[in-house]
Amino acid sequence: MAGEGKGVVLLGGWPSPFAMKVKIALSEKRVQYEYREEDISNKSDLLLKMNPVNKLIPVLIHDGRPVCESLIIVEYIDEAWSHGPALLPSDPHQRSRSRFWADFANKKVLSSLQSVWFGSVEAQETGKKELAEWMKLLGNELGEKAYFGGESFGYLDLSLVPYYWWFLALKKTLDVGLASEIDLPKLEGWLKRCLLRESVAETLPDQDKLIVYIQQIRKKRLPAN
Amino acid sequence: MAGEGKGVVLLGGWPSPFAMKVKIALSEKRVQYEYREEDISNKSDLLLKMNPVNKLIPVLIHDGRPVCESLIIVEYIDEAWSHGPALLPSDPHQRSRSRFWADFANKKVLSSLQSVWFGSVEAQETGKKELAEWMKLLGNELGEKAYFGGESFGYLDLSLVPYYWWFLALKKTLDVGLASEIDLPKLEGWLKRCLLRESVAETLPDQDKLIVYIQQIRKKRLPAN
Repeated sequence: MAGEGKGVVLLGGWPSPFAMKVKIALSEKRVQYEYREEDISNKSDLLLKMNPVNKLIPVLIHDGRPVCESLIIVEYIDEAWSHGPALLPSDPHQRSRSRFWADFANKKVLSSLQSVWFGSVEAQETGKKELAEWMKLLGNELGEKAYFGGESFGYLDLSLVPYYWWFLALKKTLDVGLASEIDLPKLEGWLKRCLLRESVAETLPDQDKLIVYIQQIRKKRLPAN
Repeated sequence: MAGEGKGVVLLGGWPSPFAMKVKIALSEKRVQYEYREEDISNKSDLLLKMNPVNKLIPVLIHDGRPVCESLIIVEYIDEAWSHGPALLPSDPHQRSRSRFWADFANKKVLSSLQSVWFGSVEAQETGKKELAEWMKLLGNELGEKAYFGGESFGYLDLSLVPYYWWFLALKKTLDVGLASEIDLPKLEGWLKRCLLRESVAETLPDQDKLIVYIQQIRKKRLPAN
């Protein structure tokens, strides 16, 4: 079966912030790979075989062996291709701090984005307040630094930028009603710096395409209130 | 304020599988630390200050700086006290595999334990089936190895043993009705080997004490069906 031989294969899905992280990490490390877009409503045999427990994208297949879960994949990429700039900082405390905020985004930011996207009326209102709070926390964590890790782009930047991109798309979707005054000049400046990187610019999907996708899923999944 | 000076302080709670992982890791690395039991219904000012985002135990405070989230703390311990045996394996693929199963336990095993513990009647039944399935998966992952990492005790063993301990306590609680035939000789052999280690034996709470705790919380939280 294809994907089981030598080389690197990524099973992903274009709107997935999880898959975006892995794409950016691979690009930063200049790893050549074959990308396969998965249809979530009709998962491939390869996906089911390579991630039988969670059955989720992204999966990175390296010389036939799967690595699952986006943040675990990003750490794997950093360790398996140790040439080039390290993605994680070297100091143990900085590493733990980066992992903390990446985990925070995976859990709390994602959960609030989903509440606003297709939760109940109450959940949408809670989600909006939470997102305002999360963006404030992330702005504080960034502070006056160019990137979350300091002077250079790394693990935490690539872990956060897909969620920030989703946040912006949700904010632009009129029927979501996410307050446009949630405006964070520090994060905007950081995003601009991230977008100057080929790894980020080539990975993040077109905002208009993402907005259409958000609206389509919202129409389907929104409970009739 | 105490905890902000030099040295190592752990904020924990005795029944918490998250805190158990950290205690075992500190013991394996022979790190001297001050332990403080937190009252979850009356969190200390130190806890709220050191983990203002999640407000959860465990928190490791090292020279006044907090590290939060159990698996992130365990990796921190492995990196900050790099003397002595490494907790994580050195091979990138083995590392990713260990992280995957530790994350699996944190999410899936914990969620099923909680469903059985105090979920609705339906959730309890689902949880029981899931636990049987999860234990089978973990038994397969262990295979014929002495420990999950191979010949020596490490990161994945200490990440799993608190959940397995909880599983056993739930199984012994008659009013839970978790099938006693979920019997896994491989995991039992592994547990025995783990219990020979001082780090594990001194950390895991007495099973009878845990059973009483499980029953008390269950009585309080179980929905009236």
